[in-house]
Amino acid sequence: MTRTDKMKLGTFVYTFGFHPASWLHPASDVHGANDFSHLLDVAKRSEAAKLDFMFMADSPAAAVGDPDALARVPTKMNRFEPLSLLAALAVTTEKLGLVATVSTSYYEPYNVARLFASIDHLSHGRVCWNVVTSDHDETGYNFNREGLDPHALRYERGNEFVDVVFGLWDSFEDGALLLDRESGVYYDKTKHHTLNHKGKHFQVRGPLNIARSPQGRPVIAQAGGSEPGMDMAARTAEIVFSLASNIERNRAFYENVKARMPAFGRNPDDLKIMPGVVLNVGETEAEAQAKVNYLIDKMHPDVGRLMLSEFLEADLRGVPLNEPFPMDRLPTEPKGSRALFEELTDFVKSGRTVGELVRHYAEKHTGNGITGTPTQIADFMEEWFDTRAADGFILMFPTLPSSLDDFVKLVLPELRRRGLFREEYEGETLRENLGLSVPTNRFAKAQTTG
Amino acid sequence: MTRTDKMKLGTFVYTFGFHPASWLHPASDVHGANDFSHLLDVAKRSEAAKLDFMFMADSPAAAVGDPDALARVPTKMNRFEPLSLLAALAVTTEKLGLVATVSTSYYEPYNVARLFASIDHLSHGRVCWNVVTSDHDETGYNFNREGLDPHALRYERGNEFVDVVFGLWDSFEDGALLLDRESGVYYDKTKHHTLNHKGKHFQVRGPLNIARSPQGRPVIAQAGGSEPGMDMAARTAEIVFSLASNIERNRAFYENVKARMPAFGRNPDDLKIMPGVVLNVGETEAEAQAKVNYLIDKMHPDVGRLMLSEFLEADLRGVPLNEPFPMDRLPTEPKGSRALFEELTDFVKSGRTVGELVRHYAEKHTGNGITGTPTQIADFMEEWFDTRAADGFILMFPTLPSSLDDFVKLVLPELRRRGLFREEYEGETLRENLGLSVPTNRFAKAQTTG
Repeated sequence: MTRTDKMKLGTFVYTFGFHPASWLHPASDVHGANDFSHLLDVAKRSEAAKLDFMFMADSPAAAVGDPDALARVPTKMNRFEPLSLLAALAVTTEKLGLVATVSTSYYEPYNVARLFASIDHLSHGRVCWNVVTSDHDETGYNFNREGLDPHALRYERGNEFVDVVFGLWDSFEDGALLLDRESGVYYDKTKHHTLNHKGKHFQVRGPLNIARSPQGRPVIAQAGGSEPGMDMAARTAEIVFSLASNIERNRAFYENVKARMPAFGRNPDDLKIMPGVVLNVGETEAEAQAKVNYLIDKMHPDVGRLMLSEFLEADLRGVPLNEPFPMDRLPTEPKGSRALFEELTDFVKSGRTVGELVRHYAEKHTGNGITGTPTQIADFMEEWFDTRAADGFILMFPTLPSSLDDFVKLVLPELRRRGLFREEYEGETLRENLGLSVPTNRFAKAQTTG
Repeated sequence: MTRTDKMKLGTFVYTFGFHPASWLHPASDVHGANDFSHLLDVAKRSEAAKLDFMFMADSPAAAVGDPDALARVPTKMNRFEPLSLLAALAVTTEKLGLVATVSTSYYEPYNVARLFASIDHLSHGRVCWNVVTSDHDETGYNFNREGLDPHALRYERGNEFVDVVFGLWDSFEDGALLLDRESGVYYDKTKHHTLNHKGKHFQVRGPLNIARSPQGRPVIAQAGGSEPGMDMAARTAEIVFSLASNIERNRAFYENVKARMPAFGRNPDDLKIMPGVVLNVGETEAEAQAKVNYLIDKMHPDVGRLMLSEFLEADLRGVPLNEPFPMDRLPTEPKGSRALFEELTDFVKSGRTVGELVRHYAEKHTGNGITGTPTQIADFMEEWFDTRAADGFILMFPTLPSSLDDFVKLVLPELRRRGLFREEYEGETLRENLGLSVPTNRFAKAQTTG
């Protein structure tokens, strides 16, 4: 059964692109890590293509590992802080949704609620918070911890954090601002509410000191593939950035998460499942593969080992590329994302060499990647969309903006020809463009029902 | 002895202006609290006038008190979060310095270091952090506290917080970025440093995941008038926002703070003392006074009482305006700013009525205000500057942008005629325009001396 809705598409942002060697591409803007004009350019191109949003991945720590390899990979060593970047993009773009990743483990809910509400006003309703609980010990070291907090604790804190933020965003009801110069009354005090949250991890009185957000509340994204992650998504998320590695796994994940939503009183249409996919497109298969090979050849072997070390939580310094993966170096239980860990360990369990895994990862991340012609890529995306493995995709372009340009020029026209992607933005806010309902203010609800 | 340097001037920003009734002024943009165009307009006007900076006052809490009065005073109930606002202004202005207030009591140093470094890159070197430790119990209630932490603890934490942020800002030395596509090396690992801070309040490993800021490090502002506040200023601040109430007190404060600097290895010229002054200017004295009276008459009596209640930490609901101030309602020891508290209690000790104090505060804040002609105001500013009660002023305009326009049109030409204020910006960065030296990176220093 063909779907009548449209595919949602977002641009995933590491400064120079997803590929670790992206900054070595001759078309890349090598000063872009600290010059706003580069990411503004990526945003403007995404907006001209009518993509739904730009998604700023983040971690509140520099990457760790082999210092010589790190010095070759700028992405995680030198990047804009995502909220300030989002605020800057909010006033220099018009229609594009703007997603920033902020961790519930290392922030205060009052600050997060203020920041996103403020950027939602700056952008006239185009902001989204990608809620993460963080992974990797190095984040903890920057925030008074001896490493990462246990998984269950991070999710427990994360869920309470989101509840507090939602509560603060309801401080002013819709229509609370009167702005009445005649009477001198600025807001209706009966539509202004104090949260008084007292929970296990947080005690936050409120109210928030900013008016209700133009979207009612900012859109919520999430990425967790674990059990608590899927519950958190079903309860609170409106976008899920999925990283499962093939169509069957994504279909199962899609069904699993959406099936959990009614128990939380939510309509499954209010959550868009968007797998991350790495796209390498060429006019011919050979041209596409040549682009992949060019970047892999540019990449120093130490960088390949470093990249795997991060997700596999294993030090791979000095491991020969042409030998089978040393399984004994893997942790029995990963501290970070189990989903990512499993996708990659599945690959190496089949006896592939370290070099093959490096190549696999550099081309396809954990597995969701396609290298091919516009028709092949459109076929791939259509099948995932139509069979409900995906409501859309987060596009992990190897290089920015050149791979984005390839996609816009070669693939997007084909998706539009098939009626799978919009010609124009449907609305003004990100929520409208994603087709998401506006959550009711908890205090207003209490009044109408009680 | 006439000074050869120029006066520094900044625009103090509450959304609609300093005066609680500012939003009721017919020229005010009543939607400005949530629409960026209003504050962008204030920034553009400040920049066209070559002012040094725009100073965003802030508190991470809505004001508390009489709900009917609060509903009449938008400033502290509905405002942009200052860092997101700064980031938006960073990419829409060219020369103006941008100052945001962020509390060391309710943030994490790693996040603050990242945010300001990021905005310094976005603005190409025009950002300043106004370091506060916060006052008023309501801020604590939003951050897991039972109220405000004790004064000494706030300053102890604040000093360590600033040290950590300074350390993180030194993660990359100048010249660390090689951006060498030939060799594939992005940065020089010998110029990249891990902080490894382990202190009483914070444990932060680092390094920061963003390149060294264009200003070496963002400029630091501070406002404390207490003993620990003056020490903190002498040790770390480059701008002090002083609120002492007359020229003698400011002269004493100026001398006191600057005299403390050599003990911290600092040159007194690297700190600019800038008292906050409320300016009411008219072509004639009568016109200036009429502007003052217009706003005071617009202000509801409950708003006047609320305004005083905040700084005096006393509930003044229902207190008659025409009777002497009820001294028994005052706390013996204020929790918030002692300087502000003393300035205002000095005024009421002389037996003035509540109504007189309301009027005094609405016209002159704690006392540093002048209502008069352009010549009178220029004389006032010149005397303070020449006799070293001030290196410049933070201009608390009653209404924005109209009082700013009055100042630019009427007073600024007179200051320029006297050679007291610049015709053009001297440099590109805020640090250059303020005439401040660039701090040495601690790691680079260690290398050259050791």
